Amino acid sequence: MIRTGIAGYGNLGRGVELAIRRNPDMKLAGFFTRRPPETLKTLDPSVPVWRLDDAAAHTDDIDVLIICGGSATDLPVMTPRLARLYNVVDSFDTHAHVPDHFSNVDAAARETGHVALISCGWDPGMFSLARLYSMCILPDEDHPESYTFWGPGVSQGHSDAVRRIPGVVDARQYTIPVEAAVEAVKRGDHPELSAREKHRRVCYVAVAEGADKALIEKKIKEMPDYFSDYDTTVHFVSLAELKEKHGGLPHGGSVIRSGKTGRDFEHTQTIEYKLTLDSNPEFTAGVLCAFARAVAKLSLRGDRGCKTVFDIAPADLSPLSGEELRAHFL
Amino acid sequence: MIRTGIAGYGNLGRGVELAIRRNPDMKLAGFFTRRPPETLKTLDPSVPVWRLDDAAAHTDDIDVLIICGGSATDLPVMTPRLARLYNVVDSFDTHAHVPDHFSNVDAAARETGHVALISCGWDPGMFSLARLYSMCILPDEDHPESYTFWGPGVSQGHSDAVRRIPGVVDARQYTIPVEAAVEAVKRGDHPELSAREKHRRVCYVAVAEGADKALIEKKIKEMPDYFSDYDTTVHFVSLAELKEKHGGLPHGGSVIRSGKTGRDFEHTQTIEYKLTLDSNPEFTAGVLCAFARAVAKLSLRGDRGCKTVFDIAPADLSPLSGEELRAHFL
Repeated sequence: MIRTGIAGYGNLGRGVELAIRRNPDMKLAGFFTRRPPETLKTLDPSVPVWRLDDAAAHTDDIDVLIICGGSATDLPVMTPRLARLYNVVDSFDTHAHVPDHFSNVDAAARETGHVALISCGWDPGMFSLARLYSMCILPDEDHPESYTFWGPGVSQGHSDAVRRIPGVVDARQYTIPVEAAVEAVKRGDHPELSAREKHRRVCYVAVAEGADKALIEKKIKEMPDYFSDYDTTVHFVSLAELKEKHGGLPHGGSVIRSGKTGRDFEHTQTIEYKLTLDSNPEFTAGVLCAFARAVAKLSLRGDRGCKTVFDIAPADLSPLSGEELRAHFL
Repeated sequence: MIRTGIAGYGNLGRGVELAIRRNPDMKLAGFFTRRPPETLKTLDPSVPVWRLDDAAAHTDDIDVLIICGGSATDLPVMTPRLARLYNVVDSFDTHAHVPDHFSNVDAAARETGHVALISCGWDPGMFSLARLYSMCILPDEDHPESYTFWGPGVSQGHSDAVRRIPGVVDARQYTIPVEAAVEAVKRGDHPELSAREKHRRVCYVAVAEGADKALIEKKIKEMPDYFSDYDTTVHFVSLAELKEKHGGLPHGGSVIRSGKTGRDFEHTQTIEYKLTLDSNPEFTAGVLCAFARAVAKLSLRGDRGCKTVFDIAPADLSPLSGEELRAHFL
């Protein structure tokens, strides 16, 4: 049994708590939290909840620790710190800062003989794998990059941005791929797409009584970075409707690569990897658990240092033996 | 530069010849053939063509050899034999015989210090990877297997079977997934599907003058294993139309896994990996080249023995460094 710990108990930590139950070779060893431990309402009261400050006290109880913190401020500090004590997995998703995060975590893990795996989830994560595999099997120096479309799904960052506008009580923002762009990519047109041509944004907004809806809509649509480069639709709804119809965290998207083969490049070959997710954090949790298994295996083999999903042989994600995998799943 | 050889010059060998040109770090070192070498019309006359019987004479010229033979009789003999001389890759696709083939090739490669990778292509190959990844991130003991649909595409085995019927001059058989089954799987229904419920078959057949079309159609539809378990449509066309409209080798399909997450399994999560290929052998060739690169890397690192796509870390498929991959593709 792989004794698995969880650091952080938000949406993602709760998803991992559930996902561990679906993996018969994994056992939930305990939680670390910055909150008073007794305030955590976890599913199984027999699983210990420890203070994150006491992380050093439980190294004998955990084979791999899944760190469920935010990428902006939590993970850059938590992951290197915890990689000094444990084999760890995180879901660091700030693409631009991956190289720095990697080198910080790598130094900590190597110094202390641990294995760490960063940026695990669906993007970065499964979508990164889809990009890498498809790029390698359909190489094209003129078109090295594949296309990634996100949604339809709830973007938490954009929802938060709308919520910060005065007069807004609650909001949900859906990111939606532009269908014509998806079709052009699948056809192999290699279109050059602006942000506006790739995705559109739809907001459902509940406002305080007497709030100036026209002004709020204008503020949303003109918000730089988040909305001004996109076609945005704003729907005002009651708080009750927002909670009832938009309470979930669905997401998904697709990675598409189209390449030409043949003597005269006359054949179009298209690869699509598509996710349709009712729950973004619960799916991410499933990915984290599979890679946590691989981290535990690598550590047992004496490997160390920081890895990404690119470095993990797929067989290591499975509880089955090589023989079983070859006989039944190849 | 990875000096890559090709053994066999049919559709697949010609595909690999083209694919090597798209991989800037690979160089075509030469061909092996059972035919008289001077009869091969290859693309670049400066690339040597050798007799397969002289395979032992060129071990200094080749880093990895891609074996492009048939799975029924060629590869079970060729791959173990050539793995004694070279690092090799093959596309052995008889799923039921993979364990035997693996152990034969593994013994040969280990004894002589080579790396071999078998069963590489799209199924087995990329579809196997899609099955493994999705099974590991959405584990479900009640529904361990994912769904694989093939087509729309030309099945060579079924086309050959039709051609063997007396009176048939030429034929093409398309395998087509049943749309209702695909939709049920995507919805997460976990349907139990018979062969007939998963795929249907459409044949385009050119017959000799005076042939009994009704009898030929009956023979096709009642042919055991190949057609009798499926809904089959037969279209009689002229030889000219067959060659003009059905001369290509398109194929594709999808691997779909749907799983439930959440405290009450209330969330459906769906993963789809889909290929739409104008040329089946040219796509397979692209997969073979990427894994040939990995085999060359593994050999340089001192690894040995037989591998499958499950054993290869994705980063090893790419000519880029870990730093480059993390910075631009994660």
